[in-house]
Amino acid sequence: MTGGRYFDDLTVGDSFETDGITLTEAAIIDFALTHDPQPFHIDKVAASGSMFGGLIASGFQTIALTFRLFRDTGVLTGTNLGGHGMDEVRWRAPVFPGDTLHARITVEALTPSRSKPDRGTVRFRYRTFNQKDVEVLSLTMDHVMARRTEGDPS
Amino acid sequence: MTGGRYFDDLTVGDSFETDGITLTEAAIIDFALTHDPQPFHIDKVAASGSMFGGLIASGFQTIALTFRLFRDTGVLTGTNLGGHGMDEVRWRAPVFPGDTLHARITVEALTPSRSKPDRGTVRFRYRTFNQKDVEVLSLTMDHVMARRTEGDPS
Repeated sequence: MTGGRYFDDLTVGDSFETDGITLTEAAIIDFALTHDPQPFHIDKVAASGSMFGGLIASGFQTIALTFRLFRDTGVLTGTNLGGHGMDEVRWRAPVFPGDTLHARITVEALTPSRSKPDRGTVRFRYRTFNQKDVEVLSLTMDHVMARRTEGDPS
Repeated sequence: MTGGRYFDDLTVGDSFETDGITLTEAAIIDFALTHDPQPFHIDKVAASGSMFGGLIASGFQTIALTFRLFRDTGVLTGTNLGGHGMDEVRWRAPVFPGDTLHARITVEALTPSRSKPDRGTVRFRYRTFNQKDVEVLSLTMDHVMARRTEGDPS
């Protein structure tokens, strides 16, 4: 499956808005049971005494969900070859059951590969917001993305 | 539930080894179906033509799994109050179905809160290895951890 943007299609400053998604209490507890079973993610009673005042989503879930929202825009389809890593990941505000999240992803840097002419590294800035437009997460992620080569559809 | 280390129990350089866990093909595909449905995480046939040469785990899964392994050591139990963020997340080598991962977590910095005497920030360095001791992931994470107060069990 293709249809995504190639490295060469992107310009620093390009920005993409994702759809929204509502994070249910069930989704928060299910994720945390496997990946992050701390009381403030799985136990409503204990969570009410935490510094958040109630159950909140695991920060790892917020990251994964944000990536999923971006993936669903189609920008990466067939052209994202993998990831190098992330920097400056900040959980800026708690995510509560019933919150509806959306994200804005901006191209921050474009670095062609020196050794491999068929790819380059794209640094994307991810910012995730809740239904009150409070920023709950921000991070940068370096993606390896395919370059246009002769014969690719333009 | 308590039993974890308090901020005051930790010293820069302290190191913790986790147990291991084997990441199955089913676990890789299940995680990716929800969180990261790119061909090289869910489609063995397409993955064989990717730059990894086969199916690999989502990097978000490797992060969550690494945290889960650390959580299971008990170091954080009842004393980890939340997280600020992560820095220098690097997916250093692909994780393939059947790989067995373990992690080493080291205390890198300790910063008492200026405004809240009951807590401090602990910067942990996480390093995750496969069964050949190849490093597959590294990152730092800032945890908010409780300080000992009068009456805590010592």
